[in-house]
Amino acid sequence: MKRLFIVGAGPGGPEHLTPAASEALRSSTDLVGYGVYLDLLGELTAGKNCHRRPLGDEIGRGRLALDLAAAGQSTALISSGDAGIYAMATVVFELLDREPKKAWRQIETEVVPGISAIQAVAARVGAPLSHDFCTISLSDLLTPWDLIERRVIAAAQADFVVAFYNPASQDRHWQLTRAVAILARHRPPETPVVLARDITRKNEMVKIEPIKSVNLSEVDMRTLVLVGNSETRRVSRWIYTPRGYGKPENGA
Amino acid sequence: MKRLFIVGAGPGGPEHLTPAASEALRSSTDLVGYGVYLDLLGELTAGKNCHRRPLGDEIGRGRLALDLAAAGQSTALISSGDAGIYAMATVVFELLDREPKKAWRQIETEVVPGISAIQAVAARVGAPLSHDFCTISLSDLLTPWDLIERRVIAAAQADFVVAFYNPASQDRHWQLTRAVAILARHRPPETPVVLARDITRKNEMVKIEPIKSVNLSEVDMRTLVLVGNSETRRVSRWIYTPRGYGKPENGA
Repeated sequence: MKRLFIVGAGPGGPEHLTPAASEALRSSTDLVGYGVYLDLLGELTAGKNCHRRPLGDEIGRGRLALDLAAAGQSTALISSGDAGIYAMATVVFELLDREPKKAWRQIETEVVPGISAIQAVAARVGAPLSHDFCTISLSDLLTPWDLIERRVIAAAQADFVVAFYNPASQDRHWQLTRAVAILARHRPPETPVVLARDITRKNEMVKIEPIKSVNLSEVDMRTLVLVGNSETRRVSRWIYTPRGYGKPENGA
Repeated sequence: MKRLFIVGAGPGGPEHLTPAASEALRSSTDLVGYGVYLDLLGELTAGKNCHRRPLGDEIGRGRLALDLAAAGQSTALISSGDAGIYAMATVVFELLDREPKKAWRQIETEVVPGISAIQAVAARVGAPLSHDFCTISLSDLLTPWDLIERRVIAAAQADFVVAFYNPASQDRHWQLTRAVAILARHRPPETPVVLARDITRKNEMVKIEPIKSVNLSEVDMRTLVLVGNSETRRVSRWIYTPRGYGKPENGA
């Protein structure tokens, strides 16, 4: 059988790599991924054919993984976080849809979910995602800014907790400032904003600042930015978004 | 040290329980949770003091876990899925905030994230969450319906992929029908809707139907309902939400 695993390797720390993901890696001969993600797997890559590819060449990585699997190599295509959240799974299905090579169609594909960055960050700071939330990528490389801004405005008006993926890059900064300003118009000035980088990895960084004065200047492409809704609160070193259990009418 | 782990045990299959979660369970003497979730842990509960509590008594479970930890028992409070997504973590922080018992404040608390139902479902069907998405709970027990509907309308207008948690219960059905009808007004008739129950458990069920004719009558509280955005497509037995790599101008 020709096999391709699309594996979510989690935020980085091996303690968050699921047994299903470990097993998919163990049973593969070939691993395809961005070099940094492969390096994070440590000993799990020993003895494997490691195909390290640069960031940005997602289509190339997807094609390589499909071609390897079609050639009979048990292959794992690695994403950090969850393979299905702004990651490699969609690239594979898009290729299968638009370039339906006969050899690719014989591959048994399996998607293995993983702990996404947003979940690792939320756990570190408390329970900010405990009510309705949305994720928005601020990269306008593949999505027009008009649509992105429409989503930010909708999230602001409907009071979703918001997680921004791809918040900034070397050449892209104004989008995050603008998005946070939109949310700030609809939320109390003390609303907590979480800035987090490399969670569960070496050099982990996490800050919580009020939306009225949050400093966004050091946000880069590896930073995850999470903005509470109008009810997200602090308690000692934690933040949480209440579900309403504590309201007297709910019998708490 | 007085310790409380708030553990996300994943969707059910042991292959998705992270090493961090396993280790938290192993190092605890007392486990608190809804009985069904504890049963899913199998051998990991052997030799532990298991405190099985009914669904619906979230506050009771939270208080019990805090009291056990404060009394010096290493305690794990178990949620299915991710402990921070519509689950027990927020209950603990809400209790710490509103009932600041001195004994509770001495507890070292750690939240351990887990694979949520939405991720396990997405992986089974392909990559529906690969662009901006939101989660909305349809339970109006603790949240007024007006706010829930406002969020559904915002998600519809801004073309988010939508995952509905708590879509229905024995006494609550019209909300899901209404919410899906709102989305249907803004999406093509063939937009895929995923209905999934007990993913990774015995009796796993998953269906994909077009929004124009989806049958919602068998949706219950254990079902997760996921609605694609206007671009979510089928390819063979999979669905995916494109990120735009395949568009000619993006060099694919």
